[in-house]
Amino acid sequence: VNEPIRDKGYAGWLRYESIEDEKVKQIYSNWCSMLSVTGQSGCLQTAKQELITGLQAMLGVQPSDWHDSTSNHLGRIVLGVAGSSPLIDQALAWSNHGASDSDGYAILSGTDEQGRYLALAGFTERGALYAVFHFLKLLQTRKELEGLAIQEIPRNGLRMINQWDNMDGSIERGYAGKSIFYENNRIVEDVTRVRDYARLLASVGMNAISINNVNVHQWETKLITNQGLTDVKRMAEVFRGYGIRLYLSINFASPIEIGGLTTADPLDLDVAKWWRARAEEIYSQIPDFGGFLVKADSEFRPGPFTYGRNHADGANMLAEAIGPYGGTVIWRCFVYNCLQDWRDRSTDRAKAAYDHFMPLDGEFKDNVILQIKNGPMDFQVREPVSPLFGGLTRTNQVLELQITQEYTGQQRHLCYLVPQWKEVLDYDTYALGEGSSVASTASGSLFKRPLGGMAAVSNIGNDSNWTGHDLAQANLFGFGRLAWNPSLSAEDIAKEWIQMTFSCDSEVEATLLRMLMDSRDIYESYTAPLGVGWMVNPNHHYGPNVDGYEYAKWGTYHFADCKGIGVDRTLSSGTGYSAQYHSPQSNVYESLDSCPDELLLFFHHVPYTHRLKSGKTVIQHIYDAHFEGAEQAEALLNKWDLLAAKIDTLRHERVRYRLVDQAEHAKEWRDAINTYFYRKSGIKDEHHRMIY
Amino acid sequence: VNEPIRDKGYAGWLRYESIEDEKVKQIYSNWCSMLSVTGQSGCLQTAKQELITGLQAMLGVQPSDWHDSTSNHLGRIVLGVAGSSPLIDQALAWSNHGASDSDGYAILSGTDEQGRYLALAGFTERGALYAVFHFLKLLQTRKELEGLAIQEIPRNGLRMINQWDNMDGSIERGYAGKSIFYENNRIVEDVTRVRDYARLLASVGMNAISINNVNVHQWETKLITNQGLTDVKRMAEVFRGYGIRLYLSINFASPIEIGGLTTADPLDLDVAKWWRARAEEIYSQIPDFGGFLVKADSEFRPGPFTYGRNHADGANMLAEAIGPYGGTVIWRCFVYNCLQDWRDRSTDRAKAAYDHFMPLDGEFKDNVILQIKNGPMDFQVREPVSPLFGGLTRTNQVLELQITQEYTGQQRHLCYLVPQWKEVLDYDTYALGEGSSVASTASGSLFKRPLGGMAAVSNIGNDSNWTGHDLAQANLFGFGRLAWNPSLSAEDIAKEWIQMTFSCDSEVEATLLRMLMDSRDIYESYTAPLGVGWMVNPNHHYGPNVDGYEYAKWGTYHFADCKGIGVDRTLSSGTGYSAQYHSPQSNVYESLDSCPDELLLFFHHVPYTHRLKSGKTVIQHIYDAHFEGAEQAEALLNKWDLLAAKIDTLRHERVRYRLVDQAEHAKEWRDAINTYFYRKSGIKDEHHRMIY
Repeated sequence: VNEPIRDKGYAGWLRYESIEDEKVKQIYSNWCSMLSVTGQSGCLQTAKQELITGLQAMLGVQPSDWHDSTSNHLGRIVLGVAGSSPLIDQALAWSNHGASDSDGYAILSGTDEQGRYLALAGFTERGALYAVFHFLKLLQTRKELEGLAIQEIPRNGLRMINQWDNMDGSIERGYAGKSIFYENNRIVEDVTRVRDYARLLASVGMNAISINNVNVHQWETKLITNQGLTDVKRMAEVFRGYGIRLYLSINFASPIEIGGLTTADPLDLDVAKWWRARAEEIYSQIPDFGGFLVKADSEFRPGPFTYGRNHADGANMLAEAIGPYGGTVIWRCFVYNCLQDWRDRSTDRAKAAYDHFMPLDGEFKDNVILQIKNGPMDFQVREPVSPLFGGLTRTNQVLELQITQEYTGQQRHLCYLVPQWKEVLDYDTYALGEGSSVASTASGSLFKRPLGGMAAVSNIGNDSNWTGHDLAQANLFGFGRLAWNPSLSAEDIAKEWIQMTFSCDSEVEATLLRMLMDSRDIYESYTAPLGVGWMVNPNHHYGPNVDGYEYAKWGTYHFADCKGIGVDRTLSSGTGYSAQYHSPQSNVYESLDSCPDELLLFFHHVPYTHRLKSGKTVIQHIYDAHFEGAEQAEALLNKWDLLAAKIDTLRHERVRYRLVDQAEHAKEWRDAINTYFYRKSGIKDEHHRMIY
Repeated sequence: VNEPIRDKGYAGWLRYESIEDEKVKQIYSNWCSMLSVTGQSGCLQTAKQELITGLQAMLGVQPSDWHDSTSNHLGRIVLGVAGSSPLIDQALAWSNHGASDSDGYAILSGTDEQGRYLALAGFTERGALYAVFHFLKLLQTRKELEGLAIQEIPRNGLRMINQWDNMDGSIERGYAGKSIFYENNRIVEDVTRVRDYARLLASVGMNAISINNVNVHQWETKLITNQGLTDVKRMAEVFRGYGIRLYLSINFASPIEIGGLTTADPLDLDVAKWWRARAEEIYSQIPDFGGFLVKADSEFRPGPFTYGRNHADGANMLAEAIGPYGGTVIWRCFVYNCLQDWRDRSTDRAKAAYDHFMPLDGEFKDNVILQIKNGPMDFQVREPVSPLFGGLTRTNQVLELQITQEYTGQQRHLCYLVPQWKEVLDYDTYALGEGSSVASTASGSLFKRPLGGMAAVSNIGNDSNWTGHDLAQANLFGFGRLAWNPSLSAEDIAKEWIQMTFSCDSEVEATLLRMLMDSRDIYESYTAPLGVGWMVNPNHHYGPNVDGYEYAKWGTYHFADCKGIGVDRTLSSGTGYSAQYHSPQSNVYESLDSCPDELLLFFHHVPYTHRLKSGKTVIQHIYDAHFEGAEQAEALLNKWDLLAAKIDTLRHERVRYRLVDQAEHAKEWRDAINTYFYRKSGIKDEHHRMIY
């Protein structure tokens, strides 16, 4: 009775619940009686342990060690890396890839003279670990094990998580408790929680992590000092066990702040020398250190501009320092004028990243990657895709997404973000004609770049279920899955996650799938109509405030007046942002006729009486979307309540609490926004609903 | 050369600059050659020291001790309290007041057989101290000393300062640095600064201070524990030297939080007993302890409502505990629903204080005072007067003002508040027919109440000039002067302050006087038109944000739509707030025809095209006021610049920096507000000025 309630949310999607169907359990057990592993080092050892843990939990028994001599015809699992056994090599033979740095793997099942076998084969140890997690997922999702011939190669080389954790324990834009990495300006002693996080990340194929906020303050600046590195090294070891390379966000002004120099000029020889010495020290302690993540000359962070240098000067200097050790510099493109005068309609924040970085295309070293946010603004629920994708052709790129729900409900509202990310990845830039998707430019495949991938800002903290909202775990999971394979569907990812995390019950799956898949559209409906964005409270970004950013310096406006709303970003009469895209996308956005409804107010200023493609006027769309969105938010709660008997009480109550909150807050959004626009336009709702 | 720049702002108005005019100096010196003081205790000693310090500074010499034997016909000053000498008693003979608790004093000059005399006579030692400060002021302002017959009795018994200082060193709504009282959750060791503050307060007649924020948090709650009192006692001693009684803000939930009880119910016997024991301890350490200041059941502070009791139950219980020792409970009336639904137009925050406290009139003990903010909302630049003044007839009252410029420019904008306070004090409540001023209800004279007075939230911090903006010192000075005598004019107070603080030069006086006297109207012009209020950024309350509080829970709305603006608070069609006033004021506000322009939008919702008494439409008034206000703000800077040669560089530059800031920020206000209303109304400025 005194035993604390076990939080089923803690395991995330690695639940490994005991399989209740005895028949299924027996079949699986028959396949998994014996285990053969060749090799002991690094990730392979982790892989073996994860496999044993998972099988023990689901099947109730551990496999016995298999030896060639044991020709007893019991099912056996063979786990290993290329070259470790004929069966492993046979599993990997499908691919002519074979590059030793590949993270790919294969799962092959069959029967040979010694009985049934299951080969879990990685090109590398990391691949072997992925094979194990994949195999366990097959059991979690009750898949048939007969005749497996699974072959996986990640589409993206870099599959990275950015932590925005500060050493005081806070997390910038964190909505799930405090940092699991830091406490009182120190890296934590007890790494249990960090290791469990590494497991979750590795299980969906993540291979890189930066462990401190891109806004690098006083304490975080010192992480690259000798003293700081002692602790960083401990973190790196934890992640190394799960095949994840550790990166640090660095302060561009470090040579001044901790180096005793008077400048951080990237072309100053002493500065370059200082960074080389730091690199040498870092790599002597952490030989597989990933590299630096840099936010420079952005939102008051220092950078090369101070010295009249450009981003390439800054990034290349750092790249030269860590290049010899195999390190990479990831340089963020989130650069814009954050002291804009709201009266000035000619400056357009949406244009800034492209204007800053396009002139430098081709100037960056091969171990520099530019990290580009999905949209030109900042993680709104709806934005067009950044024109840097398809724009840059001679520069390594990473697509940056935000898992933490800064502008999408802060893990108090349900917002499954994978559909949004899919739209971004599938977006056709037309850079090399039709079929030039963002997925292909980010991965590097379109322009044959040596490096590329996807990065995302994490949504976890020390809440016992990691993400506050249990259903927000789907976003962390989904990002990993998409980074591995951007062509997966949002629906398939959701199904897999539901089965692993909650239940294979068909009602649970169907209901939760609908909830997840609808959630982003619902959130968009009652918050941000037609691509307008930014109608939130400043600073914390939670809750409605239509004019919150309207008279501010952040370059984020909607220009609503009594006649109409929207930002004219056309070439013909506006800021010209639409011209940053390749044709035909530029024409699609330029023309009021072809611009899609959901981005209309991002590209055009129109009267409230403008008719959308839907046939509705803009004002009626605003009213309808907000009334309907709030109703749908309430319906989410009703759907969830139907599952009460099929989900453990703790998680059900916890999610329920948030859905109640969301339903209530959706009404606040509805009323604040409808009232604002009714008061401003004076146009009545056609359906005479209550507007205040 | 290494000597630090002496900040002339530190002395405030107690500058005591050496008198340069040798002739004047000689005349003054002739009057002040000798000094006779009878008595040594308490304030009299302080008075003597202050007198010597002041004379030494201004005249360059100290007076010699005078004895009757010294019949040398040199001018002598006789300082003392009633009964200490015939000359003192002669000076005090004008009054039949004579009550020993009076803070009154007299200054009499003449010639007797022993030569010239100057009698500085207090009914009490505190009065003697006031006489000294008054006398020194005569020298500072170059007054004739011949034939003086000054007689002063304060109109208000309680003349109190409220510090909103927190023990972590922060100051709620503080704009001049950190607390001079606290550091790191302790009362400071070095009391130099506190003593210098006490001097400033005593010099303008203040006799009470509460030293901690009315929002009493964890650390501050402990000030009334035995341990806390050790430090409080040290503070009390400092203030006692200047005739100022010390009060503490208390946490109504103290019996639970530090008393180990399970309730704070005011009718619970253990709770009452606990407070009595605390009172006994407090008074054993601080025999002249003033009492408790209480913010209860307000903005999430605990209070009697929790236990189904009312404010009288709460206040009286505390009053019984400290009454036997001569203590007073000051209970704030700032009580309203701070979780209001903005959609609900029937609830009116303006009505709340009256609705809460009027039913309790006559229920409070004689040592309870209700502290009532000047207006029904919260220290806006323009509000009507609280109808509790004139409403309550059987309850002690204190008028609460805010010296710290929370809503009036935060000591970055110039805003001399004395004209605003004068409007409040002179306001006729008609409680007993014409002539029932707020000044007379607050002092207690109108309804013959035993206690009454004025209190105000301080504007000082540890900035070297106390108030950040040097000219904001005028508000602290002015409050003290008005608390002493509400019938002084804003202009006379300003003149006195200018002469004492800056110079008796006529150009300095004329220019600064104009700047001060115009400043509140200017601030109102470019911020809050026609009594609307609350168009500020939430939380910190600085800078324009027309909708900042429009969809919030604080009960603070303007209801602007495309047709009009304002809150209908009439009885006939609105919230009925206007009926809380006595006739004829209630009728004045009720009628659109008689309601004064400057309060129009506080009482009425009108179309933008409504014509004001000025002949302008509401919208044109908004535009004009904002354009003109911004221009006038700029003109303040130009005026100040003319004085550059006549004011020391440090203070001139410091004020200049703020005036530049104000001029710039006034444009931001102008443009944000004009743009908001232009976009909303669609009505063009008649004069075609730039609106964005």
